[in-house]
Amino acid sequence: MKRTLHFHTLPKVISGASIVSKTEGEGPIGHCFDVVVDDDRMGLDSFEKAELQMFENAVRLCCDKTAMHKGDINVLLAGDLLNQLITANYGARNLGVPFLGLYGACSTMAESLLIGSVLVDGGYCSPVACTACSHFSTAERQYRYPLEMGTTSPPTAQRTVTGAGCLMLASQRPSSPAFSHVCISAATIGKVIDLGITDANNMGACMAPAACDTLLTYFSETGEAPSDFDWIITGDLGRFGSEMLFSLSEKKGLDLSKRHLDCGNLIFPPEEKYNSGGSGCGCSAVTLAGYFLPYLERGDVKRILFLATGALMSPTSNQQGESIPSIAHAIVLEHH
Amino acid sequence: MKRTLHFHTLPKVISGASIVSKTEGEGPIGHCFDVVVDDDRMGLDSFEKAELQMFENAVRLCCDKTAMHKGDINVLLAGDLLNQLITANYGARNLGVPFLGLYGACSTMAESLLIGSVLVDGGYCSPVACTACSHFSTAERQYRYPLEMGTTSPPTAQRTVTGAGCLMLASQRPSSPAFSHVCISAATIGKVIDLGITDANNMGACMAPAACDTLLTYFSETGEAPSDFDWIITGDLGRFGSEMLFSLSEKKGLDLSKRHLDCGNLIFPPEEKYNSGGSGCGCSAVTLAGYFLPYLERGDVKRILFLATGALMSPTSNQQGESIPSIAHAIVLEHH
Repeated sequence: MKRTLHFHTLPKVISGASIVSKTEGEGPIGHCFDVVVDDDRMGLDSFEKAELQMFENAVRLCCDKTAMHKGDINVLLAGDLLNQLITANYGARNLGVPFLGLYGACSTMAESLLIGSVLVDGGYCSPVACTACSHFSTAERQYRYPLEMGTTSPPTAQRTVTGAGCLMLASQRPSSPAFSHVCISAATIGKVIDLGITDANNMGACMAPAACDTLLTYFSETGEAPSDFDWIITGDLGRFGSEMLFSLSEKKGLDLSKRHLDCGNLIFPPEEKYNSGGSGCGCSAVTLAGYFLPYLERGDVKRILFLATGALMSPTSNQQGESIPSIAHAIVLEHH
Repeated sequence: MKRTLHFHTLPKVISGASIVSKTEGEGPIGHCFDVVVDDDRMGLDSFEKAELQMFENAVRLCCDKTAMHKGDINVLLAGDLLNQLITANYGARNLGVPFLGLYGACSTMAESLLIGSVLVDGGYCSPVACTACSHFSTAERQYRYPLEMGTTSPPTAQRTVTGAGCLMLASQRPSSPAFSHVCISAATIGKVIDLGITDANNMGACMAPAACDTLLTYFSETGEAPSDFDWIITGDLGRFGSEMLFSLSEKKGLDLSKRHLDCGNLIFPPEEKYNSGGSGCGCSAVTLAGYFLPYLERGDVKRILFLATGALMSPTSNQQGESIPSIAHAIVLEHH
């Protein structure tokens, strides 16, 4: 059973939008995001409401950039990190568009692009909005501790990115697309991989084996090699997880070192307060939309393998002594 | 933008499996389920582990019935009610199959059948396992109160079904399919609808407007009428929600009274302890797999419109004063 799907009509990425908070805006790639929000509460009375506002604004901005109305969205494919996907659900309610909710933790952006490409390529829906969103302060209190406790974290921990990213896929480009040269040609469905790690402060180590499995599957099913890509981008392995991916893939004969980039490593500076780098499903979503897509659009790079990686961590299962399973889906983005 | 997708190759439902606990097994349709488990903990040390075991067993049984190996599954599309989808995630890990995690609360079975039909009809994946699962005791302590508190609930409340259902879709029937005459011909993507209800003990009232919206959309987009179906089946509106659906749809000129059935009404007897009926994403999954599909297979009924309805309720958003949004996706199942 092949896990790699090929999209012969090359679904077009016609627009992309990214919104982040001040912390990400001050980071190494802060200049590339569409909107940098000064107040991570956005003047609202809860962090959850702020996350929802970011989600909605990212979808609206993605529409605006290509002169679309939100009512033109055929289906919204989205997810976030909060229990019951409250950001995506309330976002879909407020936007009033058809909706399919996805949960893949930090792999959500790739999952939404995979299903979105299928819907567009198969002629079922177009345009399709693919969206993922996370918020440091809502994730921290749900997965770890209330911010008020001021707990510290070990160097392997990662900081959840506060941000929302949206990509619009369509079968045909409209008259004024935000992107005219970005397409999706293939995708590989991830498997849940679990090497037994139980440390919720070391998600990079949990996710690296899933990323390695999906990479090996993609290359073996297509007969391609890492050298067929300009960049191989992981979502949020961070510094520690990236090293682990190198070590795992080297053993399998894959040399990623010259073309690997990790969104979690790019988005924050290598400073102690950011520990091992960024994470959260907003991390790969905003970095893809804001930083990588313009390179593809200009033709500075021709082919990208984008793997959003998700640690399927749960406080309940963690407290019950379970290890942390992970998943990674891959998307091939091309300049055409 | 049409929300109804048509599947011209008619993806085949080649197998189905249902597992429930003793309570459901003693109910009015208890005879139709494949497995009735006496102990809702299944001899394990947590309800979560029991739910996981049911999930896995449903997928394995669905494979066994059509002489498939679990390794033949091209992709598993699944979800449950637990935070971070722990049942589906750990189930996918233990089964070792490619996986896409979905969250649609009690609408999950229809969401998985919708995306599964797209993957099969478009020639991307086959066979595809579509699965949903819930457990009274894991849901109760996550969404409401610890069981040990012995809290009572009002008559509009519903009881989460303990059970897992799996349907296997494929582009072609294998040599020994469990079902030889069941196909999926169309599906309608739901919108998130929210009429402002905040009572988590009245999910039927939250979901009825979403079901009504999807029904009206399906009929207006296809030009069909309720009389084109033998049965119009909702997932878990319960007695109160079903009445509300009748009242809402009557105002819009749709008469459902002669052909409407609700899985939540069927699965438990109309006794006080079950309040308004069954709910949970296992409710519509096991009732479809165990009770409705055999009717279609035999040709006793020719066309079913199946709407799994989901209340996208969250303790976090509820505590923050938000109302409960809902969604319903529709699937057209036919005898061929």
